[in-house]
Amino acid sequence: MSFDHVWFLSDYGLEDEFVGVVKAVIRAIAPQARVDDVTHQIPPHDIRAGALALARSMQYLTLTPTVVLAVVDPGVGSSRRALAVEAGESVLVGPDNGLLASAVAMSGGAGRAVSLTNEDYHLPAPGPTFAGRDIFAPAAAHLCAGADLAELGESIDPITLLPGVLPLSRQEDGAVVGEVLWVDRFGNVQLNVDPDELLLMDDPLVLAWSDKTRTAVRARSYSDLKPSQVGLVTDSYGLVSIALDRRSAAAELRIGAGDAVTIKPAE
Amino acid sequence: MSFDHVWFLSDYGLEDEFVGVVKAVIRAIAPQARVDDVTHQIPPHDIRAGALALARSMQYLTLTPTVVLAVVDPGVGSSRRALAVEAGESVLVGPDNGLLASAVAMSGGAGRAVSLTNEDYHLPAPGPTFAGRDIFAPAAAHLCAGADLAELGESIDPITLLPGVLPLSRQEDGAVVGEVLWVDRFGNVQLNVDPDELLLMDDPLVLAWSDKTRTAVRARSYSDLKPSQVGLVTDSYGLVSIALDRRSAAAELRIGAGDAVTIKPAE
Amino acid sequence: MSFDHVWFLSDYGLEDEFVGVVKAVIRAIAPQARVDDVTHQIPPHDIRAGALALARSMQYLTLTPTVVLAVVDPGVGSSRRALAVEAGESVLVGPDNGLLASAVAMSGGAGRAVSLTNEDYHLPAPGPTFAGRDIFAPAAAHLCAGADLAELGESIDPITLLPGVLPLSRQEDGAVVGEVLWVDRFGNVQLNVDPDELLLMDDPLVLAWSDKTRTAVRARSYSDLKPSQVGLVTDSYGLVSIALDRRSAAAELRIGAGDAVTIKPAE
Repeated sequence: MSFDHVWFLSDYGLEDEFVGVVKAVIRAIAPQARVDDVTHQIPPHDIRAGALALARSMQYLTLTPTVVLAVVDPGVGSSRRALAVEAGESVLVGPDNGLLASAVAMSGGAGRAVSLTNEDYHLPAPGPTFAGRDIFAPAAAHLCAGADLAELGESIDPITLLPGVLPLSRQEDGAVVGEVLWVDRFGNVQLNVDPDELLLMDDPLVLAWSDKTRTAVRARSYSDLKPSQVGLVTDSYGLVSIALDRRSAAAELRIGAGDAVTIKPAE
Repeated sequence: MSFDHVWFLSDYGLEDEFVGVVKAVIRAIAPQARVDDVTHQIPPHDIRAGALALARSMQYLTLTPTVVLAVVDPGVGSSRRALAVEAGESVLVGPDNGLLASAVAMSGGAGRAVSLTNEDYHLPAPGPTFAGRDIFAPAAAHLCAGADLAELGESIDPITLLPGVLPLSRQEDGAVVGEVLWVDRFGNVQLNVDPDELLLMDDPLVLAWSDKTRTAVRARSYSDLKPSQVGLVTDSYGLVSIALDRRSAAAELRIGAGDAVTIKPAE
Repeated sequence: MSFDHVWFLSDYGLEDEFVGVVKAVIRAIAPQARVDDVTHQIPPHDIRAGALALARSMQYLTLTPTVVLAVVDPGVGSSRRALAVEAGESVLVGPDNGLLASAVAMSGGAGRAVSLTNEDYHLPAPGPTFAGRDIFAPAAAHLCAGADLAELGESIDPITLLPGVLPLSRQEDGAVVGEVLWVDRFGNVQLNVDPDELLLMDDPLVLAWSDKTRTAVRARSYSDLKPSQVGLVTDSYGLVSIALDRRSAAAELRIGAGDAVTIKPAE
């Protein structure tokens, strides 16, 4: 395997020069490699949000073999391992804190994995606080420059990778109890619920969260909803999403990532 | 015509992975194509803001033949058409909701146009809510991969494209009545007024909006204004802009996009 | 020297189409050149913040020869000069307002310098307010298209460049008095203090700023800090940074860029 492309996801934001500096390091090692951004606006230190964004996008990012560089790394400088993991025809590079786990699983599981312990492939640095620049970017770049995964450090058993925490929905007294995975820019509220889990329920449905309830109807798209209706739409990733037409469901319903939501048929 | 470049404008924001996923789809279909961002921070569903940003940038984006992928699409999944439209030596791809109209007009009008009905060029998807990924991006990419516009779907008459709504200024009792088109990051307030419309008026001028009035002077650039002065500057697109030196005119004058503004000579 | 790459830093933000338009101008003149972003979220008109971001990133950006296009330009359209300055094997392009000075110094000082007075290399424009598009971008692009620096305008003596203002720390009664250079996205507070300046002091230390004081300890990385501890960490650029573990020091301690901070041993 050799690569000419890096996808880059992080919680670095775009206010500072971090993203540019990481790309500069890659460019110095692998000038022919192209780096594209997934997003850098993962909330600071939010491993769960980063893991979910990576899991959602993974099937598209890896349509073509690539290196996926993912850095949400609150434990930077601690003993958490730095990883490169084969997944399908691609390689993920990032910290061993659960960030990569779901994406690896979605790609059919890990192939070879290494801990990035070979300091010949690190950048010298005054301290350990910017591993994205000093350890992860060089690893991603060297994979593009022709290095084999095994050169980057000690081989490790993929089974030792820290697993991700993907909450599962459950059936309870004829209701489905799910959790909000993600609120997107438009205020659509993605649940960890498959549309099939609601197949035996008739519309209208009742949503309950916190101390609130609302009636909802299933709809094919946002524009099928009347202004007064709360919709359950199968979103672009195939999961059930709570939505309004052209308005933010999250803002109007005051619901956010991590909230528990119960769905049941109306009486 | 064949293309090796895509300009991409949307209201997807940069918080989510949407922009990255669209680029991944293009990369899978047309690996040699380069995709560059115009902006993705068009306010959600704001077709007018998107159309104006596109119209402002169009003459620069198309200095070299390119595909312009523009997605501000509140009616996604409804019966609104998905389009590819030739304009000069370039092609615009986006929804038929007025977003593309001014940009097409600025490029000398539409050449051939198609509705993106050929599902061989769509990406299979669990639902219709992410047309940017599933319909528009593949169309843009296939144009870069050598497909002719006609392969993408049914030919349509460009005259049937939904027009954009560009408000016109008017003369009224010796005054010019305009509208705020755009407030930029620096707080400069662009009006739909040509500097020539003010040629017969002497400085100072009086601006009136909402229930407020302020005296203003014409200036060549922001730095020609004293701290106490409100300026009318011919902006970088050749329109009259209300500005302060190194401060936000929009914030200090409490004026925003869509507001009506009257300009007349001081008594 | 000839270039195939441009790094681009500005205060243009990402809400408007400015960054895209600048890239479109470069693409039209030098289609083979790649443009990458350092950051565009320098606060509007904040030359100091832009100069510091450039100085921090410069050693990485110029690992490979490149053009660095930097535009934070509150005096656009005034008599401030537009510059191209050789620094090492790279060239910086931007306004003569102190923005480039520290970056040039960090690269070993200026080589040749020119004022961008050759209008053959400018873009015609309706006014002087968007020099990034009309003067700086064309200059950067022509350097990539093979023009020599000397073609861009009148040669000037680098000693006449407006210097940057990098505040220096000082020793005072056994204390070190520094200044906050930068607060990053994570709330880490970078001081203009070298770790060596604190070598003779024993932990714990006392930080004093505004009317507040806090005890602090030195730590190798954020994760070495207990929740109750304020840390002094040598950051990724080798400077002393005030930090908390996984929380924003700037927000909790209410400290920001430009604030004076005194560090001394606890009694």
